[in-house]
Amino acid sequence: MVKAKSYLYQYKFKGFPKRSDLLIVEDELPEIKDGEFLAEAVYLSVDPYMRPYANNLPTGSTMIGSQIAKITDSKNPNYPVGKYVCGNFGWTTHTITTGNEKNKAKPYILPDFGDLPLSLGLGVLGMPGSTAYFGFLEICKPKEGETVVVSGAAGAVGSLVGQIAKIKGCTVIGIAGSDDKGKWLKEELGFDHFINYKTEDVEKALKAAAPNGVDCYFDNVGGDISSTVIYQMNQFGRISVCGAISSYNNIETARLERPLQMPIISKQLRMEGFVNSRWIDRYLEGIQQNLQWVKEGKLKYRETITEGFENMFDAFTSMLRGKNTGKAIVKV
Amino acid sequence: MVKAKSYLYQYKFKGFPKRSDLLIVEDELPEIKDGEFLAEAVYLSVDPYMRPYANNLPTGSTMIGSQIAKITDSKNPNYPVGKYVCGNFGWTTHTITTGNEKNKAKPYILPDFGDLPLSLGLGVLGMPGSTAYFGFLEICKPKEGETVVVSGAAGAVGSLVGQIAKIKGCTVIGIAGSDDKGKWLKEELGFDHFINYKTEDVEKALKAAAPNGVDCYFDNVGGDISSTVIYQMNQFGRISVCGAISSYNNIETARLERPLQMPIISKQLRMEGFVNSRWIDRYLEGIQQNLQWVKEGKLKYRETITEGFENMFDAFTSMLRGKNTGKAIVKV
Repeated sequence: MVKAKSYLYQYKFKGFPKRSDLLIVEDELPEIKDGEFLAEAVYLSVDPYMRPYANNLPTGSTMIGSQIAKITDSKNPNYPVGKYVCGNFGWTTHTITTGNEKNKAKPYILPDFGDLPLSLGLGVLGMPGSTAYFGFLEICKPKEGETVVVSGAAGAVGSLVGQIAKIKGCTVIGIAGSDDKGKWLKEELGFDHFINYKTEDVEKALKAAAPNGVDCYFDNVGGDISSTVIYQMNQFGRISVCGAISSYNNIETARLERPLQMPIISKQLRMEGFVNSRWIDRYLEGIQQNLQWVKEGKLKYRETITEGFENMFDAFTSMLRGKNTGKAIVKV
Repeated sequence: MVKAKSYLYQYKFKGFPKRSDLLIVEDELPEIKDGEFLAEAVYLSVDPYMRPYANNLPTGSTMIGSQIAKITDSKNPNYPVGKYVCGNFGWTTHTITTGNEKNKAKPYILPDFGDLPLSLGLGVLGMPGSTAYFGFLEICKPKEGETVVVSGAAGAVGSLVGQIAKIKGCTVIGIAGSDDKGKWLKEELGFDHFINYKTEDVEKALKAAAPNGVDCYFDNVGGDISSTVIYQMNQFGRISVCGAISSYNNIETARLERPLQMPIISKQLRMEGFVNSRWIDRYLEGIQQNLQWVKEGKLKYRETITEGFENMFDAFTSMLRGKNTGKAIVKV
């Protein structure tokens, strides 16, 4: 008998998530049936989106999230034993599924990453990689020589967006919350400028870093940092709204100190939000391009790995507090 | 000798414009030179944009604005005596110009409106008409059967946008500040629903009027009315940001009670600002289409006309307070 440990979403998150909002349970799994397979989690993802999306999750459900899992038993020829899948199985150690459940994204066998670690399937070669690739290129449509600002710049998505902007010939300014992150962005990833929003006046620092204004803004954080950037954008600037982590834990009380409409009108800005599933039919195109860039050394990555399924809640809240650099992952 | 009366922009507007911010002066004009013409104002426009745009105007300049003027003297064959021009001459009764000044929009001879009044050249057959036509159709890209919300719905632009949306087969909800306006919108212009933001709970009223959500929002007002609409939009909704009159007079203290980023992400909304000059090369296309719709009875208009150049400041502030229905105009 296989035992599965899972985190149940016991109480709706109010404000910052509390440990008691989740409940760890252990279930004995049945034998798999025809068409099903059993997958054992190897790496689990913790991502910012989990906080707002959990609002729509019925209490008592398994907490949402994706993972890289090894197929350890199978009666489904599309999912053979020994292969690794990436699936939205939630915060659980073992999953039995047909791989074809209604209203659920289909788990996919990981493409061949060569010598690269499997965990990249949750980062640069997975959802965050696809998010950065399509969310930046399709919405910002950056042109060579333009100035690009990325907030949440040292996160899983932001760190990739800045590098893709560099590949496209842009000047890149990253905003994040520690000088260590800034050092990594500038010295290793090739960002042109870094602004520490916790220690610097973002408005002044941005004027200095982008004296000719900002053309593209890839927004992971929302709130007043974003308003400050938007007020410094150029005519026909483009804003890709990927996340709003600054307001995820205080949505009831969050305010914008300045109305966004004024610069949006006078600068004729275009602000567009997206969720990654929009480009689901081109998902592999993004992954393959990122893989090639990784192999060429043009796209670097970092992972903040927490060991132990029992530490998953801490990994999640630590990520929400911005303690991670690059992709936050839990290794079972 | 011709005497020109003008309003000089004496003190920068702070908060709501004060009468003393403008100074009426009288100047004797010289004889016109070769290449110049003399135009005598017949109708002058007062528009919301004047409030924020004045912020960039050097004090001592003539207050900005467009007018319909009769050419009464000319040494320029492109501008013959007796014709009417629409020009950005500012708040002044008489203008001498070559019609070809650097960094200024070229005045144009009014197209033939048939039996329609000349003043429409400042409204449905002028800048507001072009703004409604392009700003709505090009940015919202409405589809038949969609639900469209217009704020500032009884104004010069909003009243046209709602009617164009009806022509395109949409369900139209107008938001404005008096029941008289609402009566006009529903009974004469064919709007499907009306919300009085001064007497109704906009959130509840909008849920009732648009139970299936909002697809397109044409925004003239900004502020919390707009946030309320944006929070009720459907997946892939489009927001055309034309104006933000709610914050023009309190930009320093204006706040948004709810961050816009959250619905923009989850609903994948696109919010785009514009200024009318973007489509300057297609200007006549919009005017001709509007003219045709007016003649067909599909596009109705109303004007709020103030008599007397000396009452121009009152017409302006009255418009900023929303006292006008349709286009606010001053007749000299």
